[in-house]
Amino acid sequence: MSATLEAAPCPNVHDEAWYSARASRGVQALKAYDPGHDLVALRRRFGAAQLVELGSNENPYGPSPVARAAVLDRLHELHRYPDPLGADLKRALARVHGVREDELLLGNGSHELLMMIAQVFAGPGAEVVYPRHGFAVFALAAQAAGATSRVADALPRTDAMPAGHDLEALLAAITPATTLLYLANPNNPTGTWLGAEALRAFLARVPDHVIVVFDEAYAEMADAPDYRSGLALRDAHPNLVISRTFSKAYGLAGLRVGYFVAPAGLMAVMERVRESFNVNLLALAACEAALGDAEHLAWVRARNAEERTALGEALRARGLRVFPSQTNFVLVEFGERTSAVERALVERGVILRPMGGYGLGDCLRITVGTRDENRRLLAALDEVLA
Amino acid sequence: MSATLEAAPCPNVHDEAWYSARASRGVQALKAYDPGHDLVALRRRFGAAQLVELGSNENPYGPSPVARAAVLDRLHELHRYPDPLGADLKRALARVHGVREDELLLGNGSHELLMMIAQVFAGPGAEVVYPRHGFAVFALAAQAAGATSRVADALPRTDAMPAGHDLEALLAAITPATTLLYLANPNNPTGTWLGAEALRAFLARVPDHVIVVFDEAYAEMADAPDYRSGLALRDAHPNLVISRTFSKAYGLAGLRVGYFVAPAGLMAVMERVRESFNVNLLALAACEAALGDAEHLAWVRARNAEERTALGEALRARGLRVFPSQTNFVLVEFGERTSAVERALVERGVILRPMGGYGLGDCLRITVGTRDENRRLLAALDEVLA
Repeated sequence: MSATLEAAPCPNVHDEAWYSARASRGVQALKAYDPGHDLVALRRRFGAAQLVELGSNENPYGPSPVARAAVLDRLHELHRYPDPLGADLKRALARVHGVREDELLLGNGSHELLMMIAQVFAGPGAEVVYPRHGFAVFALAAQAAGATSRVADALPRTDAMPAGHDLEALLAAITPATTLLYLANPNNPTGTWLGAEALRAFLARVPDHVIVVFDEAYAEMADAPDYRSGLALRDAHPNLVISRTFSKAYGLAGLRVGYFVAPAGLMAVMERVRESFNVNLLALAACEAALGDAEHLAWVRARNAEERTALGEALRARGLRVFPSQTNFVLVEFGERTSAVERALVERGVILRPMGGYGLGDCLRITVGTRDENRRLLAALDEVLA
Repeated sequence: MSATLEAAPCPNVHDEAWYSARASRGVQALKAYDPGHDLVALRRRFGAAQLVELGSNENPYGPSPVARAAVLDRLHELHRYPDPLGADLKRALARVHGVREDELLLGNGSHELLMMIAQVFAGPGAEVVYPRHGFAVFALAAQAAGATSRVADALPRTDAMPAGHDLEALLAAITPATTLLYLANPNNPTGTWLGAEALRAFLARVPDHVIVVFDEAYAEMADAPDYRSGLALRDAHPNLVISRTFSKAYGLAGLRVGYFVAPAGLMAVMERVRESFNVNLLALAACEAALGDAEHLAWVRARNAEERTALGEALRARGLRVFPSQTNFVLVEFGERTSAVERALVERGVILRPMGGYGLGDCLRITVGTRDENRRLLAALDEVLA
């Protein structure tokens, strides 16, 4: 013990480049995910209650109270490893989705699973297809695995749609070397979605050797008549993987739980790589409890839909182009003033997400907050735009 | 939403073998980590209070009360993502260890980091060296990364030592293709340790191109006069990585936090692959708080050392060979009756860890429990051995 206190900082005999040159090829060229602003620092600067945090698409209403109660119930067990099988949570998920428990895989957030599936099925020589303006983790996952990325161009932006997915371009990007295709529906960061019929026709044309991952992180927030979860398409497509999360509609981003739904054989292969205790003890309990409170989920959905409409109208009334959304955020075009607006809002304690990293530098992504948060955002925006 | 309820179980058009054939070569041959008994099922069968859980080397005293209080303090923030930088916990760790914050990397348990470092620095064509009877994750990490394992034989078992690490054999296993070497000190599952001088001499002979990971999961439990943490050797060795965990002495296995201490350049390369929210919100807060309670840690150390001695003596008094340990468990030789003893103890609600998977099939690994747990173990053992 005492030896550790005497340790001096290590002299940097080698710099990052030396270690990077020894890393696997994919890692050598990798840039880490950008999680946005340093919110801990901003909370200290403004005070957490003063800050309007609309940059990370969190659920401002929080989780069901029964999720918090479940955490309390397990406080005396912190010294125990979590259930490596996640059996209770899987049982609850299987019931909710009408799937078998061995068709489920639990992750430390869906981020972990989206990375893991590339590690398992894509590597040097393999190609991974995903759309431009898709979730940043798709590119990271392909790169970390050492695979080659094939990015399908988006549809041109129109008044109605902010560069939505081009399914024809995705199909055209598939080659015999393609092993994996990622697609988010509804999509982050655009908020756009693909209708059930378009997806059905698309899947029918994807060759069997390509594993298709539908990232449905925002599925519970979608209410468009033509939206359907890919879960309804699983019967016909043994290459289809559905990714879900407890970080959005369930309001449990802090606990880190996501899951895949896919054929049992595929899940069994991924189980080999999963770290056995990857989902923590409190998270397992909280998510299981949260699944049992359908009323809270429905309430969150309704509140979000109502505020999403109101916020969109208020932003449009200010002359801004707001793209349609089936999520808990809206993508808004600010043109050349985008960076200046974003920085000025930060100075007023309002945090939005800049989109430069997504190739949408003239837009900001705004989480739909509570009515009060949205009001404070609009007031700050009026000051800034004036 | 409703669409998800209609989904029928997916017909298994393909079996595991079909998906496995499409996985990367390392994953094709991979067998998942064996986390031991299904404790959730056993707790239901016996009742948690009746069960004597001595199979997972957990800390039976639990964490510092301030860690639990920190969890309570963050219950209103479950909907927020954790700090992706883990800045507050890193600051606290940097103070405790006398290192810089950029010399630290936080993981979802050290398991995640031990896997990640192979993914970063070992791949197809690379060789990974580790000792026989070492932590099972070393082999898994090498295999998942697609690297070739070179297992160094252990020293022959004697009365004094249960097949401890053979440093000469480890050195002999290193080739120009070796990129990574794992070594646990004290070692799991043998409980053995290497003295400071032996390690210093060993490191001096390891070529610079090999990154050496010292897994010190049990470091806080060691009190032998010749034991030193590898932290004291960092100055001379820019290829040295120290792995620590909050799962053992800190009693926070349920929350999943481990960390690496290594040169800043090496940590920066690994940061590229780390998932930004890999350590959950409650874990960050609890670990930071736990680090501040040195008194609790010292108390756990002292209690563990006392009970370890007493348990060892009690087992020896029953004619069993108990190997020396610097951890919170003891390795005990049961010979040909090992499996029968283990199963009979399970039937009495006493859970130990079978060692067949570690090539030590004639031994059981017994966590040092509380005085009461050890007493119940010994009583059950007396029944079984009679």
